[in-house]
Amino acid sequence: MTAQRPNPVTSAELVDFAAQLLPRLRARAPKVHCITNTVAQPITANVLLAAGAIPSLTTSEAEIGAFVRSADGVLANLGTLDPERHKAIETAVLHAAKTKVPWLLDPVFVDRSEFRLDYAKALLTGRPVAVQLNGAEFKALSGAPPNQDAVRTFARSHGTIVALTGEVDLVSDGRRLATISNGDALMGKVTAMGCAESALATAALVVGEDPFAAVVAALTVFGIAGELAAAVSKGPGTFAFAIIDALHTMTAEDVVARAKVADA
Amino acid sequence: MTAQRPNPVTSAELVDFAAQLLPRLRARAPKVHCITNTVAQPITANVLLAAGAIPSLTTSEAEIGAFVRSADGVLANLGTLDPERHKAIETAVLHAAKTKVPWLLDPVFVDRSEFRLDYAKALLTGRPVAVQLNGAEFKALSGAPPNQDAVRTFARSHGTIVALTGEVDLVSDGRRLATISNGDALMGKVTAMGCAESALATAALVVGEDPFAAVVAALTVFGIAGELAAAVSKGPGTFAFAIIDALHTMTAEDVVARAKVADA
Amino acid sequence: MTAQRPNPVTSAELVDFAAQLLPRLRARAPKVHCITNTVAQPITANVLLAAGAIPSLTTSEAEIGAFVRSADGVLANLGTLDPERHKAIETAVLHAAKTKVPWLLDPVFVDRSEFRLDYAKALLTGRPVAVQLNGAEFKALSGAPPNQDAVRTFARSHGTIVALTGEVDLVSDGRRLATISNGDALMGKVTAMGCAESALATAALVVGEDPFAAVVAALTVFGIAGELAAAVSKGPGTFAFAIIDALHTMTAEDVVARAKVADA
Repeated sequence: MTAQRPNPVTSAELVDFAAQLLPRLRARAPKVHCITNTVAQPITANVLLAAGAIPSLTTSEAEIGAFVRSADGVLANLGTLDPERHKAIETAVLHAAKTKVPWLLDPVFVDRSEFRLDYAKALLTGRPVAVQLNGAEFKALSGAPPNQDAVRTFARSHGTIVALTGEVDLVSDGRRLATISNGDALMGKVTAMGCAESALATAALVVGEDPFAAVVAALTVFGIAGELAAAVSKGPGTFAFAIIDALHTMTAEDVVARAKVADA
Repeated sequence: MTAQRPNPVTSAELVDFAAQLLPRLRARAPKVHCITNTVAQPITANVLLAAGAIPSLTTSEAEIGAFVRSADGVLANLGTLDPERHKAIETAVLHAAKTKVPWLLDPVFVDRSEFRLDYAKALLTGRPVAVQLNGAEFKALSGAPPNQDAVRTFARSHGTIVALTGEVDLVSDGRRLATISNGDALMGKVTAMGCAESALATAALVVGEDPFAAVVAALTVFGIAGELAAAVSKGPGTFAFAIIDALHTMTAEDVVARAKVADA
Repeated sequence: MTAQRPNPVTSAELVDFAAQLLPRLRARAPKVHCITNTVAQPITANVLLAAGAIPSLTTSEAEIGAFVRSADGVLANLGTLDPERHKAIETAVLHAAKTKVPWLLDPVFVDRSEFRLDYAKALLTGRPVAVQLNGAEFKALSGAPPNQDAVRTFARSHGTIVALTGEVDLVSDGRRLATISNGDALMGKVTAMGCAESALATAALVVGEDPFAAVVAALTVFGIAGELAAAVSKGPGTFAFAIIDALHTMTAEDVVARAKVADA
């Protein structure tokens, strides 16, 4: 995780890294183990495959260890948090921490369940490389409004990257902060879009030596895929599959031409 | 639940209400908690989102209470009825009954499993606002053939709305009975279409003060979405997503122009 | 299961049988109970429906017996192998063996988990009618390289049909061996395509008196569906649904015109 070269700090450098994300994923084909909710499983797997990664999704106690041991990155998504999923996350996160495999926390709907909120807080102490969440989830988890200052503070105090998704996404590592204005309103009309996006961010952590730039890259690429998909969709049904086509066909040039990344 | 104005009784009044369903859902954005089978989860969530509602789908014992407490409507679908789902339904239904949150029972495949049939019968005594099922399921549950008289009798004796789906749908509250002739044969070729439809009916119960008219509206709108989808589909694959597009884009005028609702 | 007429041995006879697969499934509408991973459930159900079969997918201990008793074929897919799925497979396979209902084993990802590999080996002693797997899974299960000789030997020694999927599929019953060169690279970019294919192969076992020819037919038809889908797709997103459309609309003539089956 020690950077061989200076970390990207300008928006131009971040965009340059974003443009390299899909080519890197296609070349490396990282194995990403996703403990994610049952609703999100099919689209999460399809987003990862379209981007060039290899998904696995078991939550079975008897085999989670073996799957995580051979994985390059781990996603812990708290949706549909049943006891099996709960235990699987314990095992996966412990192993990831021990072996320095990057892991990302997606605390889905912590604003709707005290139980889930408490668990998310406990997981945070285990130092995920990144946390991706929306405004309501950020507010529940941090007790602060979802703005730039609060995101930066939360990232610094927890030693993690925070990716706050919304109309404009904010990403901070506690020091640097970037905004990403790509995306389309239809993304909010398809179930598990955020879950699939956090799986892509997990894959990005594997191929990027700077996790801040990696997360910015994933959100930029996913947002652009949403724009390309919206242009050929008639509604959220066709959009859900057009965004997968877009991830499969998108080029580095598409990213450079469309990225709306600003450093702040 | 006391009607402020006379309940719709004519087919024209029912169509008028159906035309208002999607605008009402989009304005109110009701939270619908769906305990539904694993196969149906993605399409159920996407149908609700396309129609303007906010789905949640956890079945975890530790958090089902919190999710149901903040929900406006509850769907109990008996597909893939594992012990966790079983307990989740208990909790959800109990809470819904106590707080007058409308809940709908979808007794999927009770004709294939005695265990599931017995459970559906027990749930019926807890007074769901509505029950949606197909002919084989109705026959298993009621012991009667799936016709108008039997549907009316079953609704009256159980104090519920019965929505019997088929080529022509029948809806009765024990007194009124309506038939809906919208839909397309492709709906039978996509998994979980009926499950997604009953989720829409649950959302309709939230925004309609007359539950009979609400269920008629949901089945009418879903049937019309199926017709619009079939017109642009090449088979059940594209149909499954075209119907979601249709729910997202359909207008009140589309409903008025296409509704085939008759009062009987 | 005793053949009324000589088994197909030439590639022309195998293609002839493949051309009859979809018409037979549409006429018979066999009930196929699929114990399959949570990721694969929606697409598995939709592939079976598009091909004319009736899927069911519960894994609940309380009802698996009833579902399997009324099923014509059983799929045991080892993905996301949690304890419930594990027990469901036990019950289903025992019942299938006792009643001569054909069952197929799909040992997904046995190369990634020792636990799953051991279980697959145990299941093999229960004599599935067929086993469908990819090269890495075959290597893990047989200890041999995924080539014609090893496939034939493995099939013979376990008294089963082996369907080894890859760029060229190999199918053997230990004596006969066929290769199928249909398909498209996009099939590897959609999650659970192999799982859905093995569900189709299970359905084929129900309507074909010669299980070797039935499995060859399923892989041929699925490969051709992939080719037809690729011709109208812009990426893996649209492909996933175009292949379902193709299964729904494909004719016997399409199969005859496109089949690339060779006997070896």
